[in-house]
Amino acid sequence: MEKISKDQRSPCPIAGALDIIGDRWTLLVIRDLLWDKQRFDDFLKAPEGIATNILSQRLRWLVENGLAERTPDPEDGRKVIYNLTERGKSLRPLLKSIAKWGLESIEDVYIHPDYSK
Amino acid sequence: MEKISKDQRSPCPIAGALDIIGDRWTLLVIRDLLWDKQRFDDFLKAPEGIATNILSQRLRWLVENGLAERTPDPEDGRKVIYNLTERGKSLRPLLKSIAKWGLESIEDVYIHPDYSK
Repeated sequence: MEKISKDQRSPCPIAGALDIIGDRWTLLVIRDLLWDKQRFDDFLKAPEGIATNILSQRLRWLVENGLAERTPDPEDGRKVIYNLTERGKSLRPLLKSIAKWGLESIEDVYIHPDYSK
Repeated sequence: MEKISKDQRSPCPIAGALDIIGDRWTLLVIRDLLWDKQRFDDFLKAPEGIATNILSQRLRWLVENGLAERTPDPEDGRKVIYNLTERGKSLRPLLKSIAKWGLESIEDVYIHPDYSK
C-alpha cells in the first residue's frame, strides 16, 4: 500500500495518523462507510446528528486523503456514492479497537449488528 | 472497572468512546502519559507543539473523565504530576492500533523507542 505523504511536523506514527483521522466526525463517517453506507442521506441519518456542512467537509477530506472514493450513483446518475478505498478499509482494526474500548468503558452502549463484520 | 456515564446521545460504542477521547490533542497527551511522562513541562516538549492552554484543558478533561489522576510532585510539593488511572491505561491497545495504522499508511514516521512497551 502506497503511503500518504504528510507535512513533517512530528515523526510519531500516532501523531501522523491523527493528522488524517484524529477527528470525531471523520471517524464516525468512516464507521458508516465500513458498514457499507454509501449515500449522503444515509450518513445524515446516523444517531449522532452530523450537520450537512460538516458531513460535506469530512467526505471531501476522506476523498482528498485517499481513504474514500466518489463515483456516480448507479441508481441516479445526478448523484454520487462513496466507498472506502483499500487504505480506508485498512482502518477497520483501528475502529474495532475504539469500539472495544467503548464497550468496556462507557455505559449504555451496544454492539451494532453490522459491527460483527 | 466502573463505567463512565455519558449523556445518551448515541448507543454506538464508537461514538461513546469518541465523546471522551475523539480529539487529537487528548490522544497525544494520553500517548505521553503511556510513555510515563508526568509533568506539565514534559508534555509541552512533545514534537507536536501543544499550546499551554490546550494542554491545561486536556489534562483537566482527562482527570474529570477518570483517565488520569493529579497528585503532588514528590520532588516539589508546589507542583503536581499526572498518572494514568487503570481506565486510562486500558487505552494502550487503542493507541497501539493508531500507531500501527500510522506506520503502515503515513510516510516518514518512526517507531518511538518507548512505544515497544
